[in-house]
Amino acid sequence: MNDAKNRPSEFDLIGELLVPLAKSQRGADGLQDDCASLAINSDCEALCSIDTLVAGVHFFENDPADLIARKLLRVSLSDIAASGGVPKGYLLALSLPDDVSNEWLRLFANGLVQDQSEYEIGLLGGDTTSTLGPLTLSLTAIGEVPIGSTVRRSGAKKGDDIFVTGTIGDAALALDQINETGRDQTREIYRELYDRYLLPIPRTNIGPLLIGTASACVDISDGLCADLEHICDASTVGASLTQADIPISSTARKLLNKDSWNWQRVFGGGDDYELLFTAPLINREKVLEIEKKTGVRITRIGTVVSEPTISIMDAEGSPVKIEMFGWKHF
Amino acid sequence: MNDAKNRPSEFDLIGELLVPLAKSQRGADGLQDDCASLAINSDCEALCSIDTLVAGVHFFENDPADLIARKLLRVSLSDIAASGGVPKGYLLALSLPDDVSNEWLRLFANGLVQDQSEYEIGLLGGDTTSTLGPLTLSLTAIGEVPIGSTVRRSGAKKGDDIFVTGTIGDAALALDQINETGRDQTREIYRELYDRYLLPIPRTNIGPLLIGTASACVDISDGLCADLEHICDASTVGASLTQADIPISSTARKLLNKDSWNWQRVFGGGDDYELLFTAPLINREKVLEIEKKTGVRITRIGTVVSEPTISIMDAEGSPVKIEMFGWKHF
Repeated sequence: MNDAKNRPSEFDLIGELLVPLAKSQRGADGLQDDCASLAINSDCEALCSIDTLVAGVHFFENDPADLIARKLLRVSLSDIAASGGVPKGYLLALSLPDDVSNEWLRLFANGLVQDQSEYEIGLLGGDTTSTLGPLTLSLTAIGEVPIGSTVRRSGAKKGDDIFVTGTIGDAALALDQINETGRDQTREIYRELYDRYLLPIPRTNIGPLLIGTASACVDISDGLCADLEHICDASTVGASLTQADIPISSTARKLLNKDSWNWQRVFGGGDDYELLFTAPLINREKVLEIEKKTGVRITRIGTVVSEPTISIMDAEGSPVKIEMFGWKHF
Repeated sequence: MNDAKNRPSEFDLIGELLVPLAKSQRGADGLQDDCASLAINSDCEALCSIDTLVAGVHFFENDPADLIARKLLRVSLSDIAASGGVPKGYLLALSLPDDVSNEWLRLFANGLVQDQSEYEIGLLGGDTTSTLGPLTLSLTAIGEVPIGSTVRRSGAKKGDDIFVTGTIGDAALALDQINETGRDQTREIYRELYDRYLLPIPRTNIGPLLIGTASACVDISDGLCADLEHICDASTVGASLTQADIPISSTARKLLNKDSWNWQRVFGGGDDYELLFTAPLINREKVLEIEKKTGVRITRIGTVVSEPTISIMDAEGSPVKIEMFGWKHF
């Protein structure tokens, strides 16, 4: 089978658009080689992570192309950050339906240009194919971390503090609003949430600082409880959270006041891309220093416990019912 | 957008099937982390390559799942080999339509198990998503190569010999037969070609030996002329080939004798995954040694010339018309 016949003329344009993205990466050699080479510092090991976004599943087809590109990249940068790594570059596989326009492609490439500059990384390599299905974007991010220092999910210990960066639930609440009232109204009324849904902020500045401080870390992509469970499962522990301590943005707070069911979206909604980490009590000062240094809010929301379950306590100290847990994948 | 609703129950099975594939990779940590870590030898740099196969474009939906998996892996291993590298591991992104059966997934994983053992690599990480479109498989292979030794496309010099491994045209001729007479008849009558189409042999044993011997290298995925052009473009040279020297399998020879148009498939057909490399005359002895050491036939098929065109000479020394050149992508 050969897709020469199916090959849209846009493929030439893609070459034109993507080659400049590889300019900063010497080892990418203008994307003309089979492989890119990437120097890893001699005291480091490589970190790698793959993520796929499918139109109609992970984003709306009419989401702005530049924001799709940036979200794709940021989701992977978030993974590198959660492991304590520094991103170095990325590989991009585009499976394009016939109806993708040149304008869409240009906007997509512009989004990458913008975030490459913001996160100081470059394109290492790519592959473009036709597809009869929806637009499918797969990205592999490669980073580096000092040898043996990868922050894993498996290091949480009973008694450790549980912290999150930023605020929780914004992306999921934005998605609810988009589904209920449409994107225009959501953008107008809940701009803060809408922006967070469309364009997460990977905590690349915090990730590397967690080495030696955090005992375990994960980024919140599946949902607060689901990702906390990933740490708990890997560490064979449980967690007790205090509902009142979960950091909520002022806009999300309005929605919680309007309908308390929205708390379930805080517990179970995904796409926040904040870091959720555990640290021994002795490191509280270090965590404060990271907060000061980065200017990113870091909030203690609970404690690691030995019993392998996750509970959230309300103001009276009673467990809150968790109806939405988020979702698992391998 | 959240694909929890669309998530097939097979996702649990995929976890079950894929986790054992990561067992040999310590840094994959049982696929439970955000990133895999991968030690790169201190005298090496990382090599990486991404490839996507889409059902209906790159393979037939009814191709055996284990062979699809192995082809996916081998295509990337071939890229690593063409760059002179040694493969270390891979990341896998699966976008699965609803109708993928458990049986298909088991067979797919079995294919990976088989080739992981054959090529001594393991799974580093993965991502599984739903898709409303065709099965889409994206794989990133990661390898290593001594620092500064990556074999590139850009090093060919006027007067260099041009070599290929194995035989050329088999995969494309098999595809023609499948399209014309169906897969059963092709398998029966042209088994040698059929096998090569379904399951290429990446020249992982030859790639690393080319360091210090080859001036440029590429694997033949797009077609002999198209991939030779990649070298010529990157090296700002041309090439003159001798038709009679192009190595042809005995089965392909029968088809060429039957219809000389089939030569165009030798020149322009893709999917052979042989290595095409150039080397200075002074290295002829070294090339012979590589052939002896690996037992893989290596044939000198032409010479690098300064004029930036590709020509193929027939027995009388006249240029053969090249009607199919293969195809380009970025």
